[in-house]
Amino acid sequence: MRITDLVITPIALGDPPLLNAAGLHAPYALRTIVELTADNGVTGIAEVPGSVGVNTCLERAREAVIGADPFNWNALRAAIARRFPAETPADRGDKPWDSRQVVQVYSAIDVACLDLIGKSVDQPVANLLGGIVRDRVPFAAYLFYKHKGAGGELAFGTDPAATGWAAARQEAALDPDGIVAQARAMIAEFGFRSIKLKGGVFEPAAELAAMRALRDAFGPDVPLRLDPNALWKVETAIAAGRELEPILEYYEDPVRGQAAMAAVRQAVKLPLATNMCTTSFAEIPGSVRHGSEDIILGDHHYWGGLRASLDLAAVCRTFGRGLSMHSNSHAGISLAAMTHLAAAVPNLSYAVDTHYPWQNEEVVKGGRLRFEDGSLPLPKGPGLGVEIDRAALARLHENFTRCGLTERNDEIEMQKVSPGWKFMATRW
Amino acid sequence: MRITDLVITPIALGDPPLLNAAGLHAPYALRTIVELTADNGVTGIAEVPGSVGVNTCLERAREAVIGADPFNWNALRAAIARRFPAETPADRGDKPWDSRQVVQVYSAIDVACLDLIGKSVDQPVANLLGGIVRDRVPFAAYLFYKHKGAGGELAFGTDPAATGWAAARQEAALDPDGIVAQARAMIAEFGFRSIKLKGGVFEPAAELAAMRALRDAFGPDVPLRLDPNALWKVETAIAAGRELEPILEYYEDPVRGQAAMAAVRQAVKLPLATNMCTTSFAEIPGSVRHGSEDIILGDHHYWGGLRASLDLAAVCRTFGRGLSMHSNSHAGISLAAMTHLAAAVPNLSYAVDTHYPWQNEEVVKGGRLRFEDGSLPLPKGPGLGVEIDRAALARLHENFTRCGLTERNDEIEMQKVSPGWKFMATRW
Repeated sequence: MRITDLVITPIALGDPPLLNAAGLHAPYALRTIVELTADNGVTGIAEVPGSVGVNTCLERAREAVIGADPFNWNALRAAIARRFPAETPADRGDKPWDSRQVVQVYSAIDVACLDLIGKSVDQPVANLLGGIVRDRVPFAAYLFYKHKGAGGELAFGTDPAATGWAAARQEAALDPDGIVAQARAMIAEFGFRSIKLKGGVFEPAAELAAMRALRDAFGPDVPLRLDPNALWKVETAIAAGRELEPILEYYEDPVRGQAAMAAVRQAVKLPLATNMCTTSFAEIPGSVRHGSEDIILGDHHYWGGLRASLDLAAVCRTFGRGLSMHSNSHAGISLAAMTHLAAAVPNLSYAVDTHYPWQNEEVVKGGRLRFEDGSLPLPKGPGLGVEIDRAALARLHENFTRCGLTERNDEIEMQKVSPGWKFMATRW
Repeated sequence: MRITDLVITPIALGDPPLLNAAGLHAPYALRTIVELTADNGVTGIAEVPGSVGVNTCLERAREAVIGADPFNWNALRAAIARRFPAETPADRGDKPWDSRQVVQVYSAIDVACLDLIGKSVDQPVANLLGGIVRDRVPFAAYLFYKHKGAGGELAFGTDPAATGWAAARQEAALDPDGIVAQARAMIAEFGFRSIKLKGGVFEPAAELAAMRALRDAFGPDVPLRLDPNALWKVETAIAAGRELEPILEYYEDPVRGQAAMAAVRQAVKLPLATNMCTTSFAEIPGSVRHGSEDIILGDHHYWGGLRASLDLAAVCRTFGRGLSMHSNSHAGISLAAMTHLAAAVPNLSYAVDTHYPWQNEEVVKGGRLRFEDGSLPLPKGPGLGVEIDRAALARLHENFTRCGLTERNDEIEMQKVSPGWKFMATRW
């Protein structure tokens, strides 16, 4: 089988004014949709975080992709690799999100090939990844400090395509009461049974108060997580961690770097999780040497695809690391891929992060995927089990063209409401 | 798809009187052939070292296998695992070969499922393992100290089925000249470009002399390896290693255990390789902590199959371990599986071990697989690219029935020629 066509379509999804360590979400989150068609007439699809930079890389990979055998990922990956200088862990950058681009090219092509293969041989992607171990994948409620309002055209009062929960949920959440109310509303809608708060926004004492309020509201049976996005000093993180010991399931990236994480981990009786200090295979030996975390929050968009994520799962199994999953703002193709991966990895034993409730629009046929009691049933059908809605793709591509954004920059967006605001790698 | 039938056929292959650290090869080497048939009418096959113990385990796994989906390895593996107590690294034992049995069940079922899948979707197994990175796999000449004679019925002067090189090569090899002559004969026949000597048989000085004779005979362009099978003391291994520094490609298991291996590795400027001190995922953290070896000699029969071997390859890539491949006496189904795995693992960068030249018979259609210039071309066709020759299988099963062997025991065989000989875990 040979790949005959590669189509790259940048889209923009309305995104609410969510606060994080790097500033404020812009009204649109950029994603890139990739379609690979083979000479058997079957098309495989993928979605990556995207940016104009990633799109340029995908274009540069085109020569390697066209004519390649989708069944031979090793050869295709090597052909892509030859077109780019190797990315290093430092290329990730200091922001909450990962700035690497070539890993996203691997991810997009790997996922699209697997969808193409699955649709060609009538198997779900999860079976191509070793086999379905769970047919419902639990996700977590992902809470954000948030300004009043919504994303995309909703920010300006209109968006006929918006159908999601977030379209109706325009309340601000800037204190413990607001966070608890957001949690109640999200759980009422989706049924999530674990809660994560994106921290690193307000002073640690305020975020600890929010976590205590969540515990008071939901009790000890709802696992809680806090993610200060590496913005805290070691001494701050240790003091906060000790207060959080009785109430957290895990403590995500309180500090920056493997050595600092290890220092906090030694001092605090909490499992530490990361998607910032150990985000590539090159960093695994350092993780083992330092003992920097208990749980790695994988993300197939940044670890180089679904098959590379199986390698990560093997490493985690071998070294006693837990495995959970990180998320960025995304649509249903990424959600389907995440769900197939989580369905196929025996040692993925935590509820998975997802921003999905915060997006309103959808690019897949049939509209937004539905959680049941906080879990997503594995999409039915071969491959990823989802297909592109062409009209929705056209509308979301039009969003991309009109919004004028070329990459994620939460600092600029924050400066619009807080003039002079600057990102700091360590703040408290 | 569902598995509807499991057929387990023990066979015995004629095996010459090869010497090793545990004694002497018996006239027959036991293997077990596994066939899985699915409800689409397709049959997948596998071969494992086998023994009556392994056959009993395979029988005990039958209930988990029948009715299982061959595409869902995770579920099938878990169902098998529930039927057995977990094996530990200690279950491997002290002998050159691995005494674990459940890992062989995983391996047999994994390989047969992959062959079944490949034949069902018209893809080579190597493409199911990530994709073909090399379509010819280099193997190494595997030399043995050897008594005069041959294996199987040839030991008694007749075996009409014997067609291999070893049927004609009945010379003894008990000194450097004999080893060099064996190497010349094997290389003339198969074209191998790397040489391994199975050591741990004679005093270290004699084996060093053999290695020097090989270097003198073949020059610096033919990589050499020596495997004392962990029989040497640390001080012996260090002294010998220093003499071998100028001539070895790698130094395989000179001593027993990760700590001893690390001590030798620190003292000697040679890459250390192992298939004895790091043979399971449970031992990988110790390998990293000790720094016990540079190269792991994987073996899909003992690491739990081809997919588990991909996990091992990921671990080796992540921790800078080289990867090569161990072998036992085997027929063409194992050889095909080893070749597909080696074809699909980018970081398998050494010529692979194989005992194949030492066997004469074959169980696959078309007879013995042919090396070209020391490499085996990836067998053509879907799945493993080999199929069972029913007449040959019947004949080799008859060998098994008649030979009366139930497991490998080189000590008993050695005692027939050297009364009172005892295996020692450390000898020199």
